[in-house]
Amino acid sequence: METLKVALLGAGNVGAQVARILLEDADALAGRVGARLALTGIAVRDVDAPRAVDLPRELLSTDAEAVMAGADLVVELMGGIEPARTLILAALASGATVVTGNKALLAEHGPELYAAAEDAGVQLAYEAAVAGAIPIIRPVRDNLAGDNITKVLGIVNGTTNYILDAMDATGASFADALADAQRLGYAEADPTADVEGLDAAAKATILASLAFHTSFDRAHVWCEGITAITAEDVAAARDAGYVIKLLAICETVPANPADQGASDGDRGVAVRVHPTLLPREHALASVRGAYNAVYIEAEYAGSLMFYGAGAGGVPTASAVLGDIVSSARRRVLGGPGVTESVGAHVTPVGLEAVVTSYAIGLRVADASGVLAAIAAVFADHGVSIETMRQSTHTDGAGDETAGAQSEGDGERAGGDAELRIVTHRALDTALRRTVEAVGQLDVVHEVTSILRVEGA
Amino acid sequence: METLKVALLGAGNVGAQVARILLEDADALAGRVGARLALTGIAVRDVDAPRAVDLPRELLSTDAEAVMAGADLVVELMGGIEPARTLILAALASGATVVTGNKALLAEHGPELYAAAEDAGVQLAYEAAVAGAIPIIRPVRDNLAGDNITKVLGIVNGTTNYILDAMDATGASFADALADAQRLGYAEADPTADVEGLDAAAKATILASLAFHTSFDRAHVWCEGITAITAEDVAAARDAGYVIKLLAICETVPANPADQGASDGDRGVAVRVHPTLLPREHALASVRGAYNAVYIEAEYAGSLMFYGAGAGGVPTASAVLGDIVSSARRRVLGGPGVTESVGAHVTPVGLEAVVTSYAIGLRVADASGVLAAIAAVFADHGVSIETMRQSTHTDGAGDETAGAQSEGDGERAGGDAELRIVTHRALDTALRRTVEAVGQLDVVHEVTSILRVEGA
Repeated sequence: METLKVALLGAGNVGAQVARILLEDADALAGRVGARLALTGIAVRDVDAPRAVDLPRELLSTDAEAVMAGADLVVELMGGIEPARTLILAALASGATVVTGNKALLAEHGPELYAAAEDAGVQLAYEAAVAGAIPIIRPVRDNLAGDNITKVLGIVNGTTNYILDAMDATGASFADALADAQRLGYAEADPTADVEGLDAAAKATILASLAFHTSFDRAHVWCEGITAITAEDVAAARDAGYVIKLLAICETVPANPADQGASDGDRGVAVRVHPTLLPREHALASVRGAYNAVYIEAEYAGSLMFYGAGAGGVPTASAVLGDIVSSARRRVLGGPGVTESVGAHVTPVGLEAVVTSYAIGLRVADASGVLAAIAAVFADHGVSIETMRQSTHTDGAGDETAGAQSEGDGERAGGDAELRIVTHRALDTALRRTVEAVGQLDVVHEVTSILRVEGA
Repeated sequence: METLKVALLGAGNVGAQVARILLEDADALAGRVGARLALTGIAVRDVDAPRAVDLPRELLSTDAEAVMAGADLVVELMGGIEPARTLILAALASGATVVTGNKALLAEHGPELYAAAEDAGVQLAYEAAVAGAIPIIRPVRDNLAGDNITKVLGIVNGTTNYILDAMDATGASFADALADAQRLGYAEADPTADVEGLDAAAKATILASLAFHTSFDRAHVWCEGITAITAEDVAAARDAGYVIKLLAICETVPANPADQGASDGDRGVAVRVHPTLLPREHALASVRGAYNAVYIEAEYAGSLMFYGAGAGGVPTASAVLGDIVSSARRRVLGGPGVTESVGAHVTPVGLEAVVTSYAIGLRVADASGVLAAIAAVFADHGVSIETMRQSTHTDGAGDETAGAQSEGDGERAGGDAELRIVTHRALDTALRRTVEAVGQLDVVHEVTSILRVEGA
């Protein structure tokens, strides 16, 4: 039986598990590949660093280029842009098959890497880059290759889902839920990439490129994180029948925002990541803790959902190993790797073309005529209101009397009231302008929250 | 741009939609494949038969061999064993790539067809054979190729899920729910293949072969349909917190039933299709109507779920087109197709090695001492009882007084009582023997129902 040499770059949370399984399951994997997978070296920053898994000392090296020399497969799990990019390009140029889970690199330099793989006639596999153990790259690239995807809604970041789920379940503040998540290992010491939505935006870039056969760039993706979400936002959403999730959303929209309602104009694709109100009965609303799920609508297939562990060393190792085995089998069979399909050239469009609805929190004067004044601004902008809930503050500092709700103007005077408005669907631009105009009203003391609603 | 000739065999519910989309979306598909897909002919039994979609008359022919001549891709959607098998073998031998959705053929002759594809160095793709539009073949074959799947639980037949869901939602009898399903097009005039579990058993055979890297045969699959499920079974399940689903279950078990509890003995795989009680909070319990879902447990990935439309012409066409586009792209790139991995040679084992629990319905004498006598039989067989619910019949004909429930022996005499017992987990053989022994008791007038419980 032939032997394929596997070089591993990185032995962190995921890499160490991949190494362990390659060694422990060597016989079973050989049977599936039709060749033995020999782990010939592991490039690490520090040979003596403590690791979750004991790895054979003789495989560890700080010299990545030496580890890669002569490898048939290079598995890059070091993360970050450099030196990962340079090493992957060198591996592809040498004719090695490359498996990576590096979402940030693919989001920023995907087209360069895909082209390098195609030029070299080898495979670049990256199932682990999106949604951990959940099969999503192959289903979107291959299974749906003959269909026309219209929308992707994904919970693709476990850290933020864990935090938002904890806030929803316990009423905790963002800061407390984040601290808890850090203590339990669901969030990193520096949580920026997760809580600011950057990780989800990288994954959205990759998914959009595959789903719409067009090279998307990270710069095309609108990105808002969850750091501004308050316990009051979560409670108000719950009262109204919603749950707040950080969603990665890719959808076809008219390329020209003026074409709303026309079914025949040019279509573009808008890609965005932001905290989103989802009706509690939506399939994604029940995704708890650090789990991930991706919901896809396609012209022929209808609605599909994929659910599973979106992070963690062992589950993500499963996705990496799937890529290793299937691309190694391709290597044994001969012929070049799978290539990306990017010939559709759809137009990446911005948030201005997106139709959505807003859930708006306002701190307003608790006086008669206020609701009428606000409603008039909405009417002037052609945005209609679905629900309006008012509760009186006992104080300006965010305390809220529970359950007070009014559809008409109250006659109370003095103090502040909290107003929660959910709009009907309209262009994001129109919604934003409406909120700006409402914010300028004297009776509106603060716009406390703007969140989008999807899935209704 | 190169042109690939596509021959279509069959223009039924799925085939007609595949033809329509190949013609309508030709430009978009060419961009994804890197070659034009020219539909050169459609083999049908009757050129003049009415069809859901108007197809160009000049493409239709009753001569399948003439249609296939010179084709690069042959798409078989005629169903049935012959002539499908002979035509596919001829197509593979001619060097054509073959796409099929023929689950019955793959379940009975899969290994012969996979070997023929491997010998010819071409691809045989069959994503549409299991769970319609839901990506499941590729995820199991490729994404989980480096993992060790331990269990697959699938709702893979839309007709039976529609019927069982209707029985659960409305209290209808099996006969009424089936008649409704037939009227609405969810069940065929001859529903045998669906309601007897044969369709699900074929899909279970295919899934087991992929999941466990071993050629399974339809004969290895235990199969029970849903025709014996009564409204009373459904109501009793609901009262106890369960829903009844027809599940295809593939799982690793000790190859020798005597090895229960030993973690190191040889493992086999048991494959079975039967109506199953699922706890209502299980992810599969909420799969409604004709939808399908597959739930997979794997050693590294943990739990995964795939959900979507499991049947219907257009959704199934999506799966067929995904296979056409991705295998056509492989043809453009060069190199042989993906091959099946069947080197694991796990032992197919029967139901005797399966550990499960039973939900048993008994019609018993409504007299003192009955429960004690029954409980003694369970104890003698080493099977312990989880719950026992008794309700008194007003009559022998299945009328039940609601809510009467007893854990001890009643003192009533005369008439019949209905007893529903859920056991703890035990070997299927032990459970079966226990039920046989219980059925021989004089006080037990009838064993009305035996269902297995999973997912608890």
